[in-house]
Amino acid sequence: MVSKALGKYVQSLHQKKYRQRHGAFLVEGGKSVLELLSSDLETEHVLVTAEFASTHHKHLPDGLPLAIATEYELTQLGTLATNTTALAVARLPAEKPLPPTLPEAGLLLALDEVRDPGNLGTLLRLADWYGLPGVVLSPGCADPYSPKTVAATMGAFARVQVWERDLAEWLPTLPVGMGIFGADLEGDNVHHLKLRPAGVLVMGSESHGLTPSVEACLTRRLHIPRGAKGGAESLNVAISAAILLDNFFRNQ
Amino acid sequence: MVSKALGKYVQSLHQKKYRQRHGAFLVEGGKSVLELLSSDLETEHVLVTAEFASTHHKHLPDGLPLAIATEYELTQLGTLATNTTALAVARLPAEKPLPPTLPEAGLLLALDEVRDPGNLGTLLRLADWYGLPGVVLSPGCADPYSPKTVAATMGAFARVQVWERDLAEWLPTLPVGMGIFGADLEGDNVHHLKLRPAGVLVMGSESHGLTPSVEACLTRRLHIPRGAKGGAESLNVAISAAILLDNFFRNQ
Repeated sequence: MVSKALGKYVQSLHQKKYRQRHGAFLVEGGKSVLELLSSDLETEHVLVTAEFASTHHKHLPDGLPLAIATEYELTQLGTLATNTTALAVARLPAEKPLPPTLPEAGLLLALDEVRDPGNLGTLLRLADWYGLPGVVLSPGCADPYSPKTVAATMGAFARVQVWERDLAEWLPTLPVGMGIFGADLEGDNVHHLKLRPAGVLVMGSESHGLTPSVEACLTRRLHIPRGAKGGAESLNVAISAAILLDNFFRNQ
Repeated sequence: MVSKALGKYVQSLHQKKYRQRHGAFLVEGGKSVLELLSSDLETEHVLVTAEFASTHHKHLPDGLPLAIATEYELTQLGTLATNTTALAVARLPAEKPLPPTLPEAGLLLALDEVRDPGNLGTLLRLADWYGLPGVVLSPGCADPYSPKTVAATMGAFARVQVWERDLAEWLPTLPVGMGIFGADLEGDNVHHLKLRPAGVLVMGSESHGLTPSVEACLTRRLHIPRGAKGGAESLNVAISAAILLDNFFRNQ
């Protein structure tokens, strides 16, 4: 049974303004909740079905603020079409400092106005796959802690560092000589380069590409070759990022 | 003004059973409608705002069954949150024969139970980018002509051939010696292979991977290397396909 106050609190976290006010966000579904519990993030509340509690009791430590809920309650309180397992409230993590000596710190991903939460989540999952030191988001990006983004990360939300920065202000502060890469149909063919995973890879929004002030900061433009018989004009932003990252990491 | 009968017909095409009954599907949004009109597909109806008609009159040939509609009508009739430009009804294309001499025909993509229409649309867009001869779908895949899939293809629906086949029956009929590739965490590192775009690349569902009877047909298992510090267990199916296709086409 979930108290009325807790239910109201959980539902408020569907909205960004309440996530910011309370410094907390929702994690939905059994797999994501287990990822949360095995991470460094702080957990405020866990709501689980009796069945989930009995199957996963080893992962539900003593002292955890745990409530047993029905599938109906979980579905009512959350944003998923159905939730038959678990839901949690986690604290928004405190921002860690951006790696100061970036060239040694590996490759950062920077996203310029990526507004679709599904794309953002897929990109965070990709950053997790490659173990990137983190992802820098322009203020116009989707909220990395919205329920849709969190779901699309498939657990990566619990591991990937994110920072919000005005990219056109931040990129020029980086050490001279550091590679700032971006995708561009007129850029250099990535198959002919020997890229190493160091610097910053900047990806723009689907509809508008990079904003001009951000594009002006690039030191190298990269082009993903299309098939000889290819028809599509462009690729999805997460798809492009994946192909570019594989080209960076094949020489690590 | 859209007639009541046409409105009812358009709305029926939101559902697969009526798409099959009428042999037609919906194309929504100005960009997708223009892709349709410049393709080989047959167009039954085009509904556009007066503004769209005036801006794009060159692309709206005489004799086209055209109706002028308000933004409100387009939004009411379609599935998009808002549609301020255009909507069309296209005929489902007749199935062309599968390329008979596959090894010469390039690389086919085969999808095993890819149920998410967004993922399927992104995969069709990718097939278009690489100019693949087409995509073979298992019966459990999302409908390639559902409004969500069509939207996610970003126009590729008008160019990419699709076929429905029981993969476990179809794959064993292919010529001996043809490469049947699939992703597998235990497979060969793609960075160490010199793949050529010929044969079939089979991708499985996100949650369950390849079905065992399909996996048994593979002649080569491919592994995408994770970053040395990577955390994620897996990649999205369209992301994995993109990385693999870039590895096939870098040696074309």
